[in-house]
Amino acid sequence: MDFVLLGTGAGVPAKARNVTAIALQLLEERGTVWLFDCGEATQHQILKTAVKPRKIEKIFITHLHGDHIFGLPGLLSSRSFQGGVEKLTVYGPKGIDAYITTSLQVSGTHLKYPLEIIEIEEGIVFEDEQFTVTALSLDHGIYSVGYRIVEKDRPGSLLVDQLLQEGVKPGPLFKALKNGEMVQLDDGRVLNGKDYLGDPQKGRIITVLGDTRVCSNALILAESADFLVHEATFSAEETEMASAYFHSTTVQAAETAMKAGAKQLILTHISSRYTLEDSERLKEESKAIFANTIMAEDLMAIKIPLYVEE
Amino acid sequence: MDFVLLGTGAGVPAKARNVTAIALQLLEERGTVWLFDCGEATQHQILKTAVKPRKIEKIFITHLHGDHIFGLPGLLSSRSFQGGVEKLTVYGPKGIDAYITTSLQVSGTHLKYPLEIIEIEEGIVFEDEQFTVTALSLDHGIYSVGYRIVEKDRPGSLLVDQLLQEGVKPGPLFKALKNGEMVQLDDGRVLNGKDYLGDPQKGRIITVLGDTRVCSNALILAESADFLVHEATFSAEETEMASAYFHSTTVQAAETAMKAGAKQLILTHISSRYTLEDSERLKEESKAIFANTIMAEDLMAIKIPLYVEE
Ligand SMILES: [Zn+2]
Ligand SMILES: [Zn+2]
Repeated sequence: MDFVLLGTGAGVPAKARNVTAIALQLLEERGTVWLFDCGEATQHQILKTAVKPRKIEKIFITHLHGDHIFGLPGLLSSRSFQGGVEKLTVYGPKGIDAYITTSLQVSGTHLKYPLEIIEIEEGIVFEDEQFTVTALSLDHGIYSVGYRIVEKDRPGSLLVDQLLQEGVKPGPLFKALKNGEMVQLDDGRVLNGKDYLGDPQKGRIITVLGDTRVCSNALILAESADFLVHEATFSAEETEMASAYFHSTTVQAAETAMKAGAKQLILTHISSRYTLEDSERLKEESKAIFANTIMAEDLMAIKIPLYVEE
Repeated sequence: MDFVLLGTGAGVPAKARNVTAIALQLLEERGTVWLFDCGEATQHQILKTAVKPRKIEKIFITHLHGDHIFGLPGLLSSRSFQGGVEKLTVYGPKGIDAYITTSLQVSGTHLKYPLEIIEIEEGIVFEDEQFTVTALSLDHGIYSVGYRIVEKDRPGSLLVDQLLQEGVKPGPLFKALKNGEMVQLDDGRVLNGKDYLGDPQKGRIITVLGDTRVCSNALILAESADFLVHEATFSAEETEMASAYFHSTTVQAAETAMKAGAKQLILTHISSRYTLEDSERLKEESKAIFANTIMAEDLMAIKIPLYVEE
């Protein structure tokens, strides 16, 4: 599991930062990639990374501002052109369907894969045996949500070496043991699968917020998150500006991370008024409050390690 | 008058070539820029040039395929964000209005300048005292047009040095003389303005075609053009492929330039299957038939000189 930050800027593309898009690569977990937002030229940014468009399984849109969606029609089209055939699902606020459908229709684009568009409401927007994704609304003028991705705990893996040492031969029995069942061997021994399982692997929690002012739902979404991706459009001194434009400052993002008990904070959606040199200062503003701050940069890759009991 | 080739590729963006957009800078003529097509990330390409988004006065769309329009919403939004206040007009086939309007509406974009969207039909789509722009349909499966931009002849400039030598003092008289009128001086002399004008400046003809197979309207649009911008999606040997996908080969573009009596040919919309190294070969295919061939490259600038009588 790792992030590839495709675009980390706000509003308009700049040389230093493209508009917003984040890839969450779940290659080991499910062989796919989830995308959060898709600003213009996200597909161009992808060209500079190892991310494969055809592996994109889901796209979660936080809100419909242009800097978060204008790359969608192009990415969807190119994924088809480049041979993508697997189904893709786009989740986003009401209006996302009209936008995508009109864009594809007008341009005469016929996708070679099934495209599902789900206009979300608050609550669980996706769940399977691996993940639960919950959306809650934030405070951004336009309807904007944050997504909380909770990985389900995985049962421990079978201690194969120990079984072999004890003279148990591989076969269908191993599967039963892995499921924690009781089995009887040919020699009469009875084994309890539970005795041959390693520690269960606790799932991780990833929170990706859309643009927002400070709000209580951000705390709920970010509670105990392993990684919190939070916008920091403005520097610490611009509290009024941030409030006026429904955005957050570096310090506000850090305070949310702290109050929510998040483990790592990624600051992104940085205004184009700040140069890459300013980034160091913005990061320090946040670190003064929340030490584990990462300042996002375009094309930065961030490994999300397995959960380790403290 | 000069071209800045913003994107010279076809279908999908590649590292070597972005999707299609061409700026025709009319800075001396009218202080503005006209854009032909606007593929995704055209605004990103503009960032690498001296082209000013707020100076873009008109955008002519040849057809609605995604690689020609998916950069429009972003460019229109950013032009507003960056302080553009002058009116902008978009010309394009039926459907362009729904596409732009839906994109701006869904994204909650409020432009700070007047935006006019004109769904064109064949014929004159724009005319003023400087230029006439005519559109004719081509052969591309989807409705696709070419644009013929005819600059009107300009009267010769006033021979100020000669007037001063003859003892005529600058003043309101100069204006009358420049208009070719007869004027009487204080000393009784009568001058004919027509005797004090340089040669009139003949206007130039620029033809920008949308994607197309070989067709007769291309010849009409390109007749005696100073510059013909023609797609060459495929190399000479791919005639069947070009026909199947409603595109042209290098040789077909060259033949059209030759038959139309164009002076210069710019080959663009090159398939992403060709590397930049292949470009040399593609250019030679065309030059064998039409010597004045320019192979387009992203960010290439091409000066369009004043008309000189041969
Ligand atoms: Zn934003
Ligand atoms: Zn095209």
